[in-house]
Amino acid sequence: MQKPSIPKGTRDFGPAQVARRQHIFNVIRRTFESFGYAPLETPTLENLSVLTGKYGDEGDQLLFKVLNSGDFAKDVTADDLATGSKALLPKVAEKGLRYDLTVPFARYVAMNRGTLTFPFKRYQMQPVWRADRPQRGRYREFYQCDADVVGTDSLLCEAEIVLMMAQVLGGLGLHDFTIKINHRGVLRNIYQALGGEGRETDLFVAIDKLDKIGRDGVSKELLERGFSAPTIETLFELLTVEGTYEEKLQRLLAGFVTAGVEPDGVRPTAPDVEADSPEPLANYRGLTELAEVRDLLVASGFRQFDRLEFDPTLARGLSYYTGCIFEVKINNVQMGSVSGGGRYDNLTGSFGLPGVSGVGFSFGVDRLYDCLEALDLFTVTGETPTRCLITHFDVASGRAALPLLAELRAAGIPSELYPDASKLQKQFKYADAKGIPLVIIMGPEEAAAGVVKVKIMQTGVERVLPVGKVVAALTVE
Amino acid sequence: MQKPSIPKGTRDFGPAQVARRQHIFNVIRRTFESFGYAPLETPTLENLSVLTGKYGDEGDQLLFKVLNSGDFAKDVTADDLATGSKALLPKVAEKGLRYDLTVPFARYVAMNRGTLTFPFKRYQMQPVWRADRPQRGRYREFYQCDADVVGTDSLLCEAEIVLMMAQVLGGLGLHDFTIKINHRGVLRNIYQALGGEGRETDLFVAIDKLDKIGRDGVSKELLERGFSAPTIETLFELLTVEGTYEEKLQRLLAGFVTAGVEPDGVRPTAPDVEADSPEPLANYRGLTELAEVRDLLVASGFRQFDRLEFDPTLARGLSYYTGCIFEVKINNVQMGSVSGGGRYDNLTGSFGLPGVSGVGFSFGVDRLYDCLEALDLFTVTGETPTRCLITHFDVASGRAALPLLAELRAAGIPSELYPDASKLQKQFKYADAKGIPLVIIMGPEEAAAGVVKVKIMQTGVERVLPVGKVVAALTVE
Repeated sequence: MQKPSIPKGTRDFGPAQVARRQHIFNVIRRTFESFGYAPLETPTLENLSVLTGKYGDEGDQLLFKVLNSGDFAKDVTADDLATGSKALLPKVAEKGLRYDLTVPFARYVAMNRGTLTFPFKRYQMQPVWRADRPQRGRYREFYQCDADVVGTDSLLCEAEIVLMMAQVLGGLGLHDFTIKINHRGVLRNIYQALGGEGRETDLFVAIDKLDKIGRDGVSKELLERGFSAPTIETLFELLTVEGTYEEKLQRLLAGFVTAGVEPDGVRPTAPDVEADSPEPLANYRGLTELAEVRDLLVASGFRQFDRLEFDPTLARGLSYYTGCIFEVKINNVQMGSVSGGGRYDNLTGSFGLPGVSGVGFSFGVDRLYDCLEALDLFTVTGETPTRCLITHFDVASGRAALPLLAELRAAGIPSELYPDASKLQKQFKYADAKGIPLVIIMGPEEAAAGVVKVKIMQTGVERVLPVGKVVAALTVE
Repeated sequence: MQKPSIPKGTRDFGPAQVARRQHIFNVIRRTFESFGYAPLETPTLENLSVLTGKYGDEGDQLLFKVLNSGDFAKDVTADDLATGSKALLPKVAEKGLRYDLTVPFARYVAMNRGTLTFPFKRYQMQPVWRADRPQRGRYREFYQCDADVVGTDSLLCEAEIVLMMAQVLGGLGLHDFTIKINHRGVLRNIYQALGGEGRETDLFVAIDKLDKIGRDGVSKELLERGFSAPTIETLFELLTVEGTYEEKLQRLLAGFVTAGVEPDGVRPTAPDVEADSPEPLANYRGLTELAEVRDLLVASGFRQFDRLEFDPTLARGLSYYTGCIFEVKINNVQMGSVSGGGRYDNLTGSFGLPGVSGVGFSFGVDRLYDCLEALDLFTVTGETPTRCLITHFDVASGRAALPLLAELRAAGIPSELYPDASKLQKQFKYADAKGIPLVIIMGPEEAAAGVVKVKIMQTGVERVLPVGKVVAALTVE
């Protein structure tokens, strides 16, 4: 006899948790669909040839690999064994578990290039698996909710990402949030403004740590990596520009012009963008695109500009993002970002389909869950969907309750008859433990008189109602 | 550059398929919840100690095992390798993929025995994985939808399974179905009526093949296994009793009495059942319980008795079912059973919690999908949730459309603005390919006049409407 357990880093979700998680999924799904994103689901199992090499060396380590079925070791020799796990792997495993939703999406687009209509807008809400060390808030099996559009470089998509982020958070009751936005081009221009000293990636890696190690830590790191003190000074002047979204754009523009940064122009696909932008901004792609996103938001009726922050220090995902970059934080909870994303230019290159530009973002459901719990924002709390329990005294009164039970369910009120003729106290305890809000008492006297007692569990209030009027009374309430 | 693929036996579900599958899940979920079943989700990864030995030797073979992360081969010696894959397995893998929903449910109940309130009614809709040989209609990754109640042996649960089966199938538009019901006790009584000749399991295994190999095949097999020709004759007399549900019960009763089958009595937990049943039926547990399920259905207002068949040849899952057994077929499609289940008495015994009785059933979503497709019963067909595409001519008219776009979405109409100012023809082609039913044309003239053209794609009918009246017009339709 074994004591059962589940693998570390995994979780069971009981009824109340599933209901709460479903609430989050529903809000996200409704928002994605309202913007025309269509659902996609890919298999849990992917070929390792698809997954390997897509997430860096560390990612390859964290992939869960699935043993080939049958006699998996039949091709393994003692020599293979002696060379170790890495050399052994291709002989015993050819499949792995989905590690994120982006690579399967890219694989899907590449495989179906001939039949898909572009722009292709898809959302995907599925679990992913990573053999990470489990810790508070980090699991080995967790959900991602991604929305991406590929096959267009219209900045309307970026603006709509901001709209969707705000709509989901608002829909969940999370109103104290900040959507941070930056642009890969702005970061590049900042590097150019420093005179191209040192390595560009060193700079970005250091900036990305600003949140964690602070200005002093970043300065130290940059000094060690060969950046000069005056350069670092200039850097922080640029990174810490203050003001509104537009003021920051203008101040960075001034900085770039002063530093003689070579203009990298507007994107050729949006020829009349400059008509809307103050002329000089248009000389720098990053600044002009950020201005354009803001203009599109204004035109869309977006009113939460106090929650949209242009943050030149935002430097996530720089190995793949090529345009706008997004990150969302909930301000009144101590928690990492709950959403993020950006534009990329080469989603499907490794699958033989180059030049596919797209933009996407993702919600972390587990973090949203923790935020909602911390702020006590969940309203669904029952351990059961049941709204109404019919209690009874004996087989005869139980059977007499069956037509009412059917009527309640037909009226859309999830209901149960306690299955056994147990003591009434036990039946009430059941309703209480499961959080069932209404209990109907069907005793022999009630059955004889054609009435029932309806008790509201929260208040203890009881009413006597004719059997024929119960459903009408409950559906009004 | 690789040509991407997915593992055999797995599938991508594109937007239209996800929407159709979601429709099936929603009907099942609503039904389960209306009967008070609460959702549970368990991890994809389970410890192999939980999974192994639960599905027989063949099942153990079909489990997908996950390689331990890190240096998985570090404890493997050349000697281990020489002894082969089976001996090697425990050294390289301690986790596997969920193989069904029953064992994880049992594991959950055993782990949470202290906090769960019984009776515990749960449903679970999640994928499972089996390293089976893929073939038409059989996948390596597929969904199951299970509902079980444990901690009660009330036959109301069995009756409600019939109600739920009928409600789900009706909700999906599948009206030509047969719910077959049998009872483990009836099968045992039949064996006893044969005088206890041969092995009981041989008999049941043969009966279970009746559908596939016919009466002659079964007779041949039983003869080979030591049953006499007269015994086999008697067997088929019992198995092929004709008539209504009640008539079959009575005819089997007569057969059992004639053959002198020892009464196995009514269940002690339902002391007044015999009051409702014709006296002699109550001498046999199987017959009396089947009669009771029927009575409970009558009392619940069930009217589809032409679709409920008492079938004494139904012999599925006899290694674990101990009471009623169910199976559902769709009659107007060539397809295996789409649902099945039964009562079991020892769900959690192997996890150290004996004596947990329960009853449950399962829907095969993939088979339901295939039935609905074969009968052309899907109404959701779009490749996108978008109901309305706004087309435009240039950046200015595109931007002028943004307030209308926001208004449509706010009114609950999933909508898109074509993201690029492409040729109108291309934008219409997009709407057509995605199955978007409505296209709004926002050209410079329309924008200047404050109107739009609304085109119904299916009919080609166009209407000119003031921008301010579009949403009202569309929400009425």
